[in-house]
Amino acid sequence: MAVSLTVLVDPRDPAARRTLTAPAGTTVLKAAHAGGVDITATCGGRGRCTSCRVKFVTGTIPPPTLADEVQLGDDLVREGYRLACQCRLEEAITVQVAPPVEEQSFQILGAGPGVTPASGITIDAGITKQVVKVSLPREEHHQTSDLDQLVAAVGLEPDDVGPSVLATLPASLRDDDGTVTVTTFGRRVLAVERGDTSSMKFGLAIDIGTTSVVTTLVELESGEQLGSVSSLNPQAVFGGDLMSRIAFVQFNPGNLRKLTTRIVGLLNQHIAEVGREAGVLPKWIYKVVVVGNTCMHHLLLGIDPSWVGLAPYAPVMRHALVLPARDLNLKVAPEARVCLLPLVAGFVGADAVGVVLATRIYASTELRVAVDIGTNGEVILGSRERLWACSAPAGPALEGAQIRHGMRGALGAIDRVVVDDDIRVHTIGEVDALGICGSGLIDLLAGLLEAGVIDATGLIGVEARDALPPRLRDRMVMRGEERQVIVLRPGEAGAGREIVLTQDDVRQVQLAKGAIASGVAMLLHVAGVRGDRLAELMLAGGFGNYISIPSALRIGLIPPLPPDKVRYVGNAASLGAQLALLSEAERARAEEIAGRIEHVSLAAHPDFEQIFVDSMNFPPR
Amino acid sequence: MAVSLTVLVDPRDPAARRTLTAPAGTTVLKAAHAGGVDITATCGGRGRCTSCRVKFVTGTIPPPTLADEVQLGDDLVREGYRLACQCRLEEAITVQVAPPVEEQSFQILGAGPGVTPASGITIDAGITKQVVKVSLPREEHHQTSDLDQLVAAVGLEPDDVGPSVLATLPASLRDDDGTVTVTTFGRRVLAVERGDTSSMKFGLAIDIGTTSVVTTLVELESGEQLGSVSSLNPQAVFGGDLMSRIAFVQFNPGNLRKLTTRIVGLLNQHIAEVGREAGVLPKWIYKVVVVGNTCMHHLLLGIDPSWVGLAPYAPVMRHALVLPARDLNLKVAPEARVCLLPLVAGFVGADAVGVVLATRIYASTELRVAVDIGTNGEVILGSRERLWACSAPAGPALEGAQIRHGMRGALGAIDRVVVDDDIRVHTIGEVDALGICGSGLIDLLAGLLEAGVIDATGLIGVEARDALPPRLRDRMVMRGEERQVIVLRPGEAGAGREIVLTQDDVRQVQLAKGAIASGVAMLLHVAGVRGDRLAELMLAGGFGNYISIPSALRIGLIPPLPPDKVRYVGNAASLGAQLALLSEAERARAEEIAGRIEHVSLAAHPDFEQIFVDSMNFPPR
Repeated sequence: MAVSLTVLVDPRDPAARRTLTAPAGTTVLKAAHAGGVDITATCGGRGRCTSCRVKFVTGTIPPPTLADEVQLGDDLVREGYRLACQCRLEEAITVQVAPPVEEQSFQILGAGPGVTPASGITIDAGITKQVVKVSLPREEHHQTSDLDQLVAAVGLEPDDVGPSVLATLPASLRDDDGTVTVTTFGRRVLAVERGDTSSMKFGLAIDIGTTSVVTTLVELESGEQLGSVSSLNPQAVFGGDLMSRIAFVQFNPGNLRKLTTRIVGLLNQHIAEVGREAGVLPKWIYKVVVVGNTCMHHLLLGIDPSWVGLAPYAPVMRHALVLPARDLNLKVAPEARVCLLPLVAGFVGADAVGVVLATRIYASTELRVAVDIGTNGEVILGSRERLWACSAPAGPALEGAQIRHGMRGALGAIDRVVVDDDIRVHTIGEVDALGICGSGLIDLLAGLLEAGVIDATGLIGVEARDALPPRLRDRMVMRGEERQVIVLRPGEAGAGREIVLTQDDVRQVQLAKGAIASGVAMLLHVAGVRGDRLAELMLAGGFGNYISIPSALRIGLIPPLPPDKVRYVGNAASLGAQLALLSEAERARAEEIAGRIEHVSLAAHPDFEQIFVDSMNFPPR
Repeated sequence: MAVSLTVLVDPRDPAARRTLTAPAGTTVLKAAHAGGVDITATCGGRGRCTSCRVKFVTGTIPPPTLADEVQLGDDLVREGYRLACQCRLEEAITVQVAPPVEEQSFQILGAGPGVTPASGITIDAGITKQVVKVSLPREEHHQTSDLDQLVAAVGLEPDDVGPSVLATLPASLRDDDGTVTVTTFGRRVLAVERGDTSSMKFGLAIDIGTTSVVTTLVELESGEQLGSVSSLNPQAVFGGDLMSRIAFVQFNPGNLRKLTTRIVGLLNQHIAEVGREAGVLPKWIYKVVVVGNTCMHHLLLGIDPSWVGLAPYAPVMRHALVLPARDLNLKVAPEARVCLLPLVAGFVGADAVGVVLATRIYASTELRVAVDIGTNGEVILGSRERLWACSAPAGPALEGAQIRHGMRGALGAIDRVVVDDDIRVHTIGEVDALGICGSGLIDLLAGLLEAGVIDATGLIGVEARDALPPRLRDRMVMRGEERQVIVLRPGEAGAGREIVLTQDDVRQVQLAKGAIASGVAMLLHVAGVRGDRLAELMLAGGFGNYISIPSALRIGLIPPLPPDKVRYVGNAASLGAQLALLSEAERARAEEIAGRIEHVSLAAHPDFEQIFVDSMNFPPR
């Protein structure tokens, strides 16, 4: 039996609604997704977050499930909220979805300044444009073809030209009396264009992260960055982290294609947008370099990543790949070469290779470490002698997930916190606070540690609060069994709502920072060196560049180093992609680097447990 | 303004109707095609045939155009018939289309018995299946991937395996504990299948003609032909001959894709049908060999054939091509190799190369000639010393087009005629005659020549009819200015309607047979040999195999040879494709043959005019 579901998609506009039908018994989440209505399900619909919560407007509100009670809490359950992944369609209902945060308001780290003369590379993207005059076939007896004439003019063989280039060859040849521009990559002909188009030669560097995607348009002769666009990864609707997305794939055979289609669709939007802004036609884009973690890489190629999520976390493939753009349905020149940088392991992907390429760790005479902090972060340690890498899965806490009042770094997020005799906050956009994001959490914990509100084990010391300044003291409360720090009270300046830090939130951040710190510690352990031997620690990626270095040092997210040895390196993965885009030598180097990196599996190492436990604690005052 | 058009698609069923709308001023033909209603337009909608005729049922009948009057004649015009390509939608109308002849009733020459031990080839299709046990990645530290393990087991490199094979690799590897069957062509991995599928190894030979398409399924180990299906080429709706189809492509930029989609769609139907009948899954088909004329070849690949139709009639490409099936959207194994045999010239295609391969002319110690009679026929002359080929475009007369009562070789067509003291006919299916097809026309003309009804110049000798037997005499009439032979009168046995042969019909057949005869004569002339030096003349293709050899000799369609030197060789192009399918050595030989064939352009040769005029006449009694 089919049941009707009406979804109000915008709380500010009751007319913004979609009605669909689904078989009775389907969960509201699945019914909505099947009907093309995006309800965000950060945990992949497994009842482990609150992102898919809906409020019942009409119809019988079903009794709350255990997941409803745990995730939403009594108040929201009483107000008629349920998790869409938990409640099933039994009769016609109308629900209101949680409003999606405006994408534009997110902080996404862009591509950075790109390749500069300081990068010291010789530009040679491998794309050659040659203007030739082709003699058209004129004689009936003589056996020839348009293609024979073309390859004779450019010194190639018919097999160097694929049929997709041939489709429009006769018209191109005859439009300008045989004058055409032939674009090649090695011996492969990528395009034959009428007239002289030799000045049109562009490429894309694409960084596909679990959370965000950055596409950069580059002129291939000068290396000039013409534009860059970034967006949230639209696959996140089906799961915020890798494991949720893998679970989504396993749920239904059609879901893999859904994820692939989503990312390809976004890339094509990016291509259209960045090209429009720069006045570059997509057909003039002949080379694309893609970096991303292993799971994103596999999903882009339509490769089932299910086993990447299971021990021993082996990728399906690791080698560098060069494909025609038409194979991926990317809307650039159909024969444009899409170069996917190589992978190292299931959780150390091409993005890590890009970071090594961009940070030049591989050529360093001293030992350096690069840390890409994120849901699925990576740590790379090494020098020109050796390179080690491990994954450091911080989990989604630093993205605001599984934190009571956590949120991503978007409009209204508390991103900076100072603790002195009280707690003072700054919000993104300087609007009323809606929640707290990762950089705010790290500042908050650093400040609370320094003030003695939290001890080295992470306990919120409510019992000892009398020693604190009065304002700070009054923020420490017990609510039921729960220790809390009230960060903002309703009515305080900048407070959109009450925002608290719970004991459980502290534990979540400890787990996250412990993962990263233990990654660094493990690599140092495997390399047999002490942390103070490090010449430099580089913070890479979309998250690392927003956190305060002193706060990160204070909570022990990174090992104790003088602050001047810690440096932001921007979106290093994307810069690595740009290097490989602009230089075939750099692209070859990426392959060599991937072959050199020694993968260290944290969980499989006998010393890991002790290192992880040690890393969970905070450094003492 | 949009106007409504209702098309009655089946005269026997008034309920079988389609209503669509199109902008006012659109021709009925284009409106119908745009709306997905197939109205056959053999001449491509240029007012040069009657295939798109419609009868007005409601609405104002427009005044007849010149093309209506010339093609349809007064009677049909008076009855409300018009050519759909000539009349424009100005108000809501309902028209009845000419009923399509049931496809099943057409005579299409199938694939023949296929490759037999007598063919003397060593079977080696180049497809190898290897059952291997792959060790799955088990250790987290060690950098490996599913693909690395696979290629190690089979002795290949990661680059030998494309991403489309990788999509399902992890599941395939784990389903049977690492036991998989790896299919390769050279070093290229075409498929990785779970378990042992080594006995499943199939291929297709496809012959794409302008008029008909034949698909043959072959077991690649034994060479056994498992089944064959044939159909009319569905592109014919948009034009019966090559020039009409080229004109259709030029008419509108979207039309090329329409033709490509049509043929690919038909091939996928064939694949599904032949596979279902033989119990072979399409994913077990790993090699496909395609032959066809140059235009069909280009249309399959989506290559614009416009300039193939213009002097100097150069093909866009000529070399042998090997593509993955997914590039052509053929629904066999996605990585199956589709091998297109090479072309010689714009009107001497891969089908001619297939004929040479199958007939072994290239190895003959004596001079032989193969004639593929058809709308776009070819003649190949040669021996192991040299090979010459030319196109011999008979035009559509022998397919029944541009003949007053002509029709294709379908149910109700007069296919055999005997002339003694009267005219006696045989029809396909032995039903009442609906018209006369090519083989019937050739018999009829041969008989009338022998009886003295027609003289060597082709004139129907009405003035001299008194010398003939009475029954034959009474069949010769003048109607207005027109000389006619009444082949069947209404009421005579087997007569569904009156069927006549007009003087103009005789001229059309003279043009057709003159084209073929002059092709043979020209090649003999270029080779510098006399016709009586020929060791053999082979009749190949879908038409040649239905005509009577004595009749063909009598009208001079083929040069004067003892009848025992003329032989039917069946669908030689398709057999050539089967040889290349079953033997990589034969496929290589096809390339060598294409390189050896010397193309002779009839029209460009200074002696052509005289040879053609000589060939138009009939041999005297």
